[in-house]
Amino acid sequence: MEQAARGQLVDLSAEECWELITTTPVGRIAWSTSTGPVVVPVNFSVDGRSIKIRTAAYSSMVQKADVERVAFEVDHIDEATRTGWSVLARGRAEVRYGEPDDGTGPEPWPRGPRSATVVIDVDEITGRWLNPAER
Amino acid sequence: MEQAARGQLVDLSAEECWELITTTPVGRIAWSTSTGPVVVPVNFSVDGRSIKIRTAAYSSMVQKADVERVAFEVDHIDEATRTGWSVLARGRAEVRYGEPDDGTGPEPWPRGPRSATVVIDVDEITGRWLNPAER
Repeated sequence: MEQAARGQLVDLSAEECWELITTTPVGRIAWSTSTGPVVVPVNFSVDGRSIKIRTAAYSSMVQKADVERVAFEVDHIDEATRTGWSVLARGRAEVRYGEPDDGTGPEPWPRGPRSATVVIDVDEITGRWLNPAER
Repeated sequence: MEQAARGQLVDLSAEECWELITTTPVGRIAWSTSTGPVVVPVNFSVDGRSIKIRTAAYSSMVQKADVERVAFEVDHIDEATRTGWSVLARGRAEVRYGEPDDGTGPEPWPRGPRSATVVIDVDEITGRWLNPAER
């Protein structure tokens, strides 16, 4: 079987990463636990160089992520052309309680109380683009 | 402003999770580091109750994930209806070197050597479905 042509992975600049991260409302937050990492999709908003996520005050995200370093990933993959991009933002998370009143928090998608806001203070952002294969 | 109707998060069974995980060729692997977790999108294959990923032998995934517990996430989100599902598979990763010759490894998408296969032996799989809001 002939091997399919493959695209090339190209690094994105921090500026490109911040532009791309605002093009999608859903990303994935990952935090560490004693039994390995956990990854959960969430809708979010970007406020300056921070990422904001609304969640339940009693969630494991709040329990495990507060004052810890976490990762936040967004991507867009086109299966047909096998191309796409991904951005990984990392930094310290801090949980704030109460409804955000400055309009910078995201509107929660799922039903139920979402009285905690996880704020990720991003200090490292990297991304890659998988470009189309030459045929 | 009237609050938009919100859907409900419903847990999926392990059987439903394994069915959903095979419907998409790309997921995200997360591993722990001393500076917090890392999350990277990868194409993958499912072999029994294992997940297989091809990568470069010198990659940080190989260095950090081998014989450690990792997480693997897949999801499908519909932004327009604010619905979707996600599956989180967790387990110990093991790196095998050399081209897999049994046909169970995925075909790598990016260019370049991908002589390592990360095999995740899944011992925990959970998932959630965000169903449509009642309007």
